[in-house]
Amino acid sequence: MTGERPRARDIGVAIGLLPPGPLNAITDVPGVKVGHATIIRGRGPLVPGAGPVRTGVTAIVPHDGDVFQEKVAAAAFVLNGFGKSVGLPQLQEMGVLETPILLTSTLNVPRVADALIDWSIQRTPHTGIRTAAVNAVVGEVNDGFLNDLQGRHVRGEHVFQALAEATGGPVTEGSVGGGTGASCMGFKGGIGTASRMLPDLPEGRVLGVLVQTNYGGGWLTVNGAPVGRELGRPEAPARRSPTPAPGEPGGSVMVVVATDAPLDHRQLERVAKRVGLGLARTGFYSSNASGDIFIAFSTARCIAHAPRAGDRVGILSDGALDPVFLATVEATEEAAINSLLRATTVVGRDDNVREAIEIARLLPILRKYNALGWDAGLPAGPPA
Amino acid sequence: MTGERPRARDIGVAIGLLPPGPLNAITDVPGVKVGHATIIRGRGPLVPGAGPVRTGVTAIVPHDGDVFQEKVAAAAFVLNGFGKSVGLPQLQEMGVLETPILLTSTLNVPRVADALIDWSIQRTPHTGIRTAAVNAVVGEVNDGFLNDLQGRHVRGEHVFQALAEATGGPVTEGSVGGGTGASCMGFKGGIGTASRMLPDLPEGRVLGVLVQTNYGGGWLTVNGAPVGRELGRPEAPARRSPTPAPGEPGGSVMVVVATDAPLDHRQLERVAKRVGLGLARTGFYSSNASGDIFIAFSTARCIAHAPRAGDRVGILSDGALDPVFLATVEATEEAAINSLLRATTVVGRDDNVREAIEIARLLPILRKYNALGWDAGLPAGPPA
Amino acid sequence: MTGERPRARDIGVAIGLLPPGPLNAITDVPGVKVGHATIIRGRGPLVPGAGPVRTGVTAIVPHDGDVFQEKVAAAAFVLNGFGKSVGLPQLQEMGVLETPILLTSTLNVPRVADALIDWSIQRTPHTGIRTAAVNAVVGEVNDGFLNDLQGRHVRGEHVFQALAEATGGPVTEGSVGGGTGASCMGFKGGIGTASRMLPDLPEGRVLGVLVQTNYGGGWLTVNGAPVGRELGRPEAPARRSPTPAPGEPGGSVMVVVATDAPLDHRQLERVAKRVGLGLARTGFYSSNASGDIFIAFSTARCIAHAPRAGDRVGILSDGALDPVFLATVEATEEAAINSLLRATTVVGRDDNVREAIEIARLLPILRKYNALGWDAGLPAGPPA
Amino acid sequence: MTGERPRARDIGVAIGLLPPGPLNAITDVPGVKVGHATIIRGRGPLVPGAGPVRTGVTAIVPHDGDVFQEKVAAAAFVLNGFGKSVGLPQLQEMGVLETPILLTSTLNVPRVADALIDWSIQRTPHTGIRTAAVNAVVGEVNDGFLNDLQGRHVRGEHVFQALAEATGGPVTEGSVGGGTGASCMGFKGGIGTASRMLPDLPEGRVLGVLVQTNYGGGWLTVNGAPVGRELGRPEAPARRSPTPAPGEPGGSVMVVVATDAPLDHRQLERVAKRVGLGLARTGFYSSNASGDIFIAFSTARCIAHAPRAGDRVGILSDGALDPVFLATVEATEEAAINSLLRATTVVGRDDNVREAIEIARLLPILRKYNALGWDAGLPAGPPA
Repeated sequence: MTGERPRARDIGVAIGLLPPGPLNAITDVPGVKVGHATIIRGRGPLVPGAGPVRTGVTAIVPHDGDVFQEKVAAAAFVLNGFGKSVGLPQLQEMGVLETPILLTSTLNVPRVADALIDWSIQRTPHTGIRTAAVNAVVGEVNDGFLNDLQGRHVRGEHVFQALAEATGGPVTEGSVGGGTGASCMGFKGGIGTASRMLPDLPEGRVLGVLVQTNYGGGWLTVNGAPVGRELGRPEAPARRSPTPAPGEPGGSVMVVVATDAPLDHRQLERVAKRVGLGLARTGFYSSNASGDIFIAFSTARCIAHAPRAGDRVGILSDGALDPVFLATVEATEEAAINSLLRATTVVGRDDNVREAIEIARLLPILRKYNALGWDAGLPAGPPA
Repeated sequence: MTGERPRARDIGVAIGLLPPGPLNAITDVPGVKVGHATIIRGRGPLVPGAGPVRTGVTAIVPHDGDVFQEKVAAAAFVLNGFGKSVGLPQLQEMGVLETPILLTSTLNVPRVADALIDWSIQRTPHTGIRTAAVNAVVGEVNDGFLNDLQGRHVRGEHVFQALAEATGGPVTEGSVGGGTGASCMGFKGGIGTASRMLPDLPEGRVLGVLVQTNYGGGWLTVNGAPVGRELGRPEAPARRSPTPAPGEPGGSVMVVVATDAPLDHRQLERVAKRVGLGLARTGFYSSNASGDIFIAFSTARCIAHAPRAGDRVGILSDGALDPVFLATVEATEEAAINSLLRATTVVGRDDNVREAIEIARLLPILRKYNALGWDAGLPAGPPA
Repeated sequence: MTGERPRARDIGVAIGLLPPGPLNAITDVPGVKVGHATIIRGRGPLVPGAGPVRTGVTAIVPHDGDVFQEKVAAAAFVLNGFGKSVGLPQLQEMGVLETPILLTSTLNVPRVADALIDWSIQRTPHTGIRTAAVNAVVGEVNDGFLNDLQGRHVRGEHVFQALAEATGGPVTEGSVGGGTGASCMGFKGGIGTASRMLPDLPEGRVLGVLVQTNYGGGWLTVNGAPVGRELGRPEAPARRSPTPAPGEPGGSVMVVVATDAPLDHRQLERVAKRVGLGLARTGFYSSNASGDIFIAFSTARCIAHAPRAGDRVGILSDGALDPVFLATVEATEEAAINSLLRATTVVGRDDNVREAIEIARLLPILRKYNALGWDAGLPAGPPA
Repeated sequence: MTGERPRARDIGVAIGLLPPGPLNAITDVPGVKVGHATIIRGRGPLVPGAGPVRTGVTAIVPHDGDVFQEKVAAAAFVLNGFGKSVGLPQLQEMGVLETPILLTSTLNVPRVADALIDWSIQRTPHTGIRTAAVNAVVGEVNDGFLNDLQGRHVRGEHVFQALAEATGGPVTEGSVGGGTGASCMGFKGGIGTASRMLPDLPEGRVLGVLVQTNYGGGWLTVNGAPVGRELGRPEAPARRSPTPAPGEPGGSVMVVVATDAPLDHRQLERVAKRVGLGLARTGFYSSNASGDIFIAFSTARCIAHAPRAGDRVGILSDGALDPVFLATVEATEEAAINSLLRATTVVGRDDNVREAIEIARLLPILRKYNALGWDAGLPAGPPA
């Protein structure tokens, strides 16, 4: 369904200065896997509890092993906390992630967290830790414009499916998994990803980003071009300001950053604080009712649940972080654009329609603003 | 079952300088109600998923109205984030509480949150907000020493029961509700409460505290008397330091502070930061694996979901906060002692036993250290 | 000296969607005043302690009264804390600003703070508070590329001068005051300002921003146009990545937001967190060694040092904040561009030269990327 | 002058369970040095700017080397931010301390910071970093009850003296250095120190604490005994509550924790958050106008200003932190008691007198409450 639509670089939108990784995806980070469960069921008027259903769950798995037994260094930053993510207090205190990260729709969070606990217990059935409580990490956006939000249709089977199907390689983007019912700046949003190489680092090669875009407000900007303004979305005449109407769902964006650079918790928190800067370049201003929550982890810093004495870890000097920060900003911006480009139109509850951005209308605007054809490291040429 | 055991003041332990409210309970704050659902089922060896079950849920309801429609000003402070509470990011961002607070056992949190969403949706069925996502606030402690933690035995019916039975008046303390399976400093812990009058304030009359005590480490101190040390708990000979053994559940303590003083979010966060100071006086040092999370709310600051223009609110100068802070520290200390005194011995999974502190052994120690018979505002007399 | 150079709108760069205030300056907020002391002395090789001197101090005064006696609600957000600002812990705890905000060069901060204490004591000589300690708020950027940083040449007289000359009306921008020796993205930076009207609010009319730009890294973007890339600054061939060279001063940007909307501390902190989103649109990514610190205050919320019982304050619902957030992002972006456009070339220590961006070279680039001629509320036309 | 008065253990007050180090001082941590400059001048009525002077500065030096070139891992926690400490934002961002920590009186902070910059520049005169800006860390308490606070009598010479005289070995406590004019809970306060051995750790042997006590409110508790209450300080009859009178200086307490355990920034922040728990056991409740700021550093984690590639560091599992946390709480409590016991009576401005606690009156109270004669690891015996 989403196979026909291009990614940003497919149409000549090459954001930023650093080179992307081979897949230009979070899965460029060795060991990181992504899986989705997409739930589309019913049509017509909203009957809370019955549907229509336009939702799902996306899993980001940090490595192939048992994540509870081999935790990864992690940190979170809450730019705007109008969100229902779970797992953040412990992630911040202990500086580790001990489950995959799941992204879903707002009110599904408890059910998804409960299923993630099931999955973790099954993966780590050791008698010795049967009293241990795993810290499930789940994020969300509000897909209530298209989906029967209060019906909470994500079940344990969907969580297990997303985790079972998680794989390396290219990531399916757009109206899938946790992004199935997402909207972004007046267009269909959803899942997007991108990556950047980190050539200057002594250790670590790549940083990848996955976004679940559902934010509102402002006008979409693509590589500097004022696309939302040109396309008149959100529709300005009806409103005195370009901020969300009172009745609209509030938005939200979840972002996950992964890297194989050996960053510790403090450094990963610094990374997470840069995510908003990448989103800002797309027109995002972090509206009041948005849950804008960013999580970063490093696969190079595994922390054993039962540590061995004498462990020593490599450290990356903070002075080497500038490429990491820039990579975060660039990959986030590009991942957000990918989420919009790859998303397909969805008709949802009450026949609400969220249309995908039209590529045919987008291209002339990008040309008008000379936003095509850049290539990192080369002089900018004239637009096609 | 718990009726026979005394509260702190019943045996002459009068903590602090400020006078308690009429009930010496969080329910001294007008409108605040507390309810419990206690789940005790089975005995013998742990069979994860089957039992034995020693757990439950406690509800703190901030006022009689629709809490979603009439939110209360609130704040949280995480002293140690090794915990799985949900709802904190939005509570901190928006500065309001929009559901009752539920306290349960660690891995039950998602199920309890899901049921709290059900309850809130039923309470606020308005069509206009059917896409709105309520921010459920649920805290927890790890009762895995006595309870089939991974079995997650709290169901929606228990949540509805705790909320339905929530009432003003005296609060049932000890091994009930979310405190059913709790342990504290080697003794049976659980639910406790206390309050303090705020005579100097221009507005607001009382501050109340409810605790769910499950913390470990250190030796219990009661009104200055080294009770844990005298009773040899935790047992020192077996260990080189009085910190939790590696195999022990990690502890945790949830504390809820309520007041009718007109505090805003920033001021309530300042209140929440003082809670640990009260716990410290009982021997608490916030051990590594403890989820020590404190929430404060003011019933004087209702914030409408659909605000009216021109609303004005009373403000309390920060210069008037000292009695509020002192009240927080004192009521927290006394509530923790009440939780221990009122708790009854529980035999749990694998026939693990957590004994209530013996009053008959406690009293001579309190006398030895002259910790009885103080009365706020009067000179200390000689011990009995 | 700076009079010849244009502001952004003078050359047709009209950033964002909301209309600017009459002055398009922080002084559009009633009562807010700005003053500078600029110190330029000596030339040639750096002799620490002797010069050359290219530095100064800028004062932002929140209202005409005694700011210690009539404090204003305030909050700060530290996006990247590699900076030496003083006064933030108390500003965050008490939620108020009780002095003007002074912006200077890094190592001058203590001397400027000391002089600000002098000034405050003289302004508030009341016997009753002669033991009171005022919380001086001073921010900084590192101007060591042009200035004798370690010489600390700002004296009390300069502080008093900046405060005495503070005035409403148009704000002098560019290479003045605390921006005298500043650099930004390879060009001369310094002081800039902008404002936005807030037409939808029940109370409050305007939000203004003042920036002290000294940030490095990335390539300058002006209203979406990749100006830094086109102009080759920072020079790419000499470096493998567009991040600051190890020997370069680290950057930093201080931003002050003022509004007459009645925001409390929590809401102002939310405003401050949006500032980075505006900077991001200029190419900023918050480099490692940058002190990126943002302070917001509301002139509508004066808090008396000696409060009167029964005070009540107007409140603005968080649901009304979206225009405030968008105004913050837009005014910050435009203020940063103004700082670059208005700055003049400065030759400093060791004959280091930081050139102002050339308007004649800038305009063709803006045309190439169709970044001129937008006007808020009107359809975009073709570029000139 | 202070030589005659005992420390806590000299009179049989042995706080806590863990054994103290050889000196029971922060200088038990290898390499850590402490120095004071005490300024006592004039008597009689306060003439701001002239005196009387009862103030000073205390230096805590983390190691013998160049602290700018070889930084130590560090973190801070602000329990109550009504204080003027400088250097915290960068310390938190970068996770390191790059100067000694200086403690002084509130309004002296800028002058002390300026002198510390002088000292650092002189210590690290390398041409290559002559544009680098050192992050001076200075804490303070308000000694305005005894001292000409607004006169700011600490000069550069005093800073250099305190740093030059800093030494290992026993630490001078009481009314010296930054504690010269300090008051605490109605008694003379000042500098105190204590330490704890960490026998269970794979690396690291000791944790030491230094306090500058000036806090008010509550009634002093010594090892569980209600000393303040028994001695009637602060005087209860004159007040309706035991909180500070409006005219009183606000208090504050600065605490520095040092350890040779290999803790990183996140772990040190966790340590700093426990400091208040130790203070709480002395009666402290963190009053409104108190600057309660705690800094922790680890000498085992030196971070080079110019790092070498391939550096690896030892890590301490969070699971091993419980003894570190308990040591922090115990050493803080004992250091605070030492500060009171060792302090001598000071007559200050306007002939204000702050009396040292009388040992002869203290001992009977400690006996009454059986607070003497405990010894860690042994059963408690009867009091003398």
